[in-house]
Amino acid sequence: MSEPDSRIAALLNGAPEDSVHARVVHTLAETGAMSAADLARTTGLARSTISTALTDLRKSGVVVSAQHEGAKGVGRPAQTLTLNPEAGTCIGIHLSIDSIGLVVADVSHSFVFEQTLHLRRDYAPAEALALLRDAVPQAYRRNGLPMSGLLGAGISVSGPVTPDGVILQASILPRWAGVNVREVFAPALGVPLFADNESNCAAMAEMMWGAAQGHSEFVLFKIDLGVGGAIVHGGRILTGAAGGAGEFGHMTVDPNGPLCRCGNRGCLERYAAFDEPLDQLSRVQGRRVTFPEAIRLARQGDVGAQRLIHDCAVAAGRGLASIGTVLNPPLILIGGKLALADELVLGPLIDTYERHTLIKAATVPQARRTRIRRGRFTDKDSLLGAVGLVLRGRGRL
Amino acid sequence: MSEPDSRIAALLNGAPEDSVHARVVHTLAETGAMSAADLARTTGLARSTISTALTDLRKSGVVVSAQHEGAKGVGRPAQTLTLNPEAGTCIGIHLSIDSIGLVVADVSHSFVFEQTLHLRRDYAPAEALALLRDAVPQAYRRNGLPMSGLLGAGISVSGPVTPDGVILQASILPRWAGVNVREVFAPALGVPLFADNESNCAAMAEMMWGAAQGHSEFVLFKIDLGVGGAIVHGGRILTGAAGGAGEFGHMTVDPNGPLCRCGNRGCLERYAAFDEPLDQLSRVQGRRVTFPEAIRLARQGDVGAQRLIHDCAVAAGRGLASIGTVLNPPLILIGGKLALADELVLGPLIDTYERHTLIKAATVPQARRTRIRRGRFTDKDSLLGAVGLVLRGRGRL
Repeated sequence: MSEPDSRIAALLNGAPEDSVHARVVHTLAETGAMSAADLARTTGLARSTISTALTDLRKSGVVVSAQHEGAKGVGRPAQTLTLNPEAGTCIGIHLSIDSIGLVVADVSHSFVFEQTLHLRRDYAPAEALALLRDAVPQAYRRNGLPMSGLLGAGISVSGPVTPDGVILQASILPRWAGVNVREVFAPALGVPLFADNESNCAAMAEMMWGAAQGHSEFVLFKIDLGVGGAIVHGGRILTGAAGGAGEFGHMTVDPNGPLCRCGNRGCLERYAAFDEPLDQLSRVQGRRVTFPEAIRLARQGDVGAQRLIHDCAVAAGRGLASIGTVLNPPLILIGGKLALADELVLGPLIDTYERHTLIKAATVPQARRTRIRRGRFTDKDSLLGAVGLVLRGRGRL
Repeated sequence: MSEPDSRIAALLNGAPEDSVHARVVHTLAETGAMSAADLARTTGLARSTISTALTDLRKSGVVVSAQHEGAKGVGRPAQTLTLNPEAGTCIGIHLSIDSIGLVVADVSHSFVFEQTLHLRRDYAPAEALALLRDAVPQAYRRNGLPMSGLLGAGISVSGPVTPDGVILQASILPRWAGVNVREVFAPALGVPLFADNESNCAAMAEMMWGAAQGHSEFVLFKIDLGVGGAIVHGGRILTGAAGGAGEFGHMTVDPNGPLCRCGNRGCLERYAAFDEPLDQLSRVQGRRVTFPEAIRLARQGDVGAQRLIHDCAVAAGRGLASIGTVLNPPLILIGGKLALADELVLGPLIDTYERHTLIKAATVPQARRTRIRRGRFTDKDSLLGAVGLVLRGRGRL
């Protein structure tokens, strides 16, 4: 391990309160790039204290100047600093239903590579482990990265996971129920592990690189084949007692409705997710229609495809209205593939939200309204966010 | 104003960060009574720093030893300190549907007196103001308290109120919609004002003096003639963008259900509150039945009364199940008058919660389960909590 590697590892794996150096390194790891003035503002430390630490951290190669595109305008632009991209990498792993996503980013927040590893549905922990044990070193070798620079791994799980890493029954990975992800991966990876459910990771990605940058209070509402979400308060993702906070897809819409994979009846997911509507559209069209195709058809005027998207949007808006009544958040981001339909989904979703939620936009001043916007990421958010767990030191197992 | 009065006012109305003295005074105001060792632990300051400040604060009469009942057992008990009860008072005001609650507490957390002022339904702000302008000085005079010791007033509103004090339309005080409580009361009272909605005040009371003491994460779910609640995270009450967080009673149960006072249809409140069921029971019994009577009838074996309570409990449990799915809180307190029915309501409510929520107790380890308990207060919580707003410096307008 080269010198900046080991220094950055020691500083990142310690607490930010340990020293001024640790505080600077943690802040840069969280935010990516920052000027010395912003570092002082964010940490609350004196400008001179920051300067002394930065001189030392630059000398030892932990911090470098960020390359930015030729700054135009008057005056000398403030120099932006990042952690040295050569000083360390983190990996993000997304345990999905029939595949595992793998991504590597360096500590300056640049994504170096990304890969999807395919498995059969209902794969067991041992299969995932065997695959990653080969794939990770191979990927590092192929991209000319030293494995010694690996600082930590973040794991994004398709289902609720307790703060100590146990995947709960409601997960869409049935063979992982009760499994502790730390016990599975720690021996093979040998680095600090971080884990959270995929929706919380998605919220992390929106917060770090997406539509929630600069927002510390928001709700992420994701609609895909399932419905999930996350609640961010004070810049932190709410986990809940057992890691179940933000599981919006399983709010009860109709206690006598159809059985859900979670074991309850009539969950929101059964009405707002687009798996079944897509089956119906496929039957009508006489061929398998994917969701991007459904959007294209809707834009071309196909009434059935328009109806599919509209019905999901209305069901989502109705569920979201109750979430709004419970939380009254200033910002709601719509994520997941349904958001690809843009105005086709956002229009009816917002109308339905306004119809059913308690605090309606028209009754409160502009600044106190709940804004509903599309998230930046409609997929890959959970994978990118898994890296974010490591960089922000959240969900450590 | 005597010396301790003015010193305590200056320290309490400043920021806790201003000085060690301010930190100690704010901490004692929040908690009531504490030993010097606990003060050091809570503030994170050195024991010696605390001692120096305490010597000075005791000399000037701001801090005194708490009178505690003869401590038994081995060893000298740690001395407990409070703010000097003679150094200042705060008032709590609860703006209810046809009455105003008024309570006075001193800074050592002792309640000095309490009063209910009756008005006609739908009273206007000017009527409330006229009443309080007389009642407050009268009450102080009658109880031998100097008005100069009044440090602040907390106002608990039956409905959502924005962080800057504007009562929103969904309030049960129709003539107060759009009114800023600061503008109404500040000129008459002339002291710092604090405001929040009644459920948030109730949560404050449970946190300071009730069943949530020592808990920083919990949900309060109140069932009375209406249904309300509050979400506490990190020891702070979530307000939401427009002060609407925790308005559980207006989650949509049935979008085609009966119209609600909030303007939506089929709100949870229409099923879980006991106003209409009580009308029905009264019709069956041929006389006006109050809720305490309904509980008594149920305990005596009256099937109709049992059914009333059971149905409310099931409707409440179903709504609460979705709140559990959204927030997965470690603790839920059931407040409001329905909680007076104790096991009659808690049994079916918890069964229904477990049936419909995502994370079921049986599937997670003991420590990660959501516990559902009765709150300590079933009424007066909103009024007591209004005083808590002042003592904790929350919701300042």
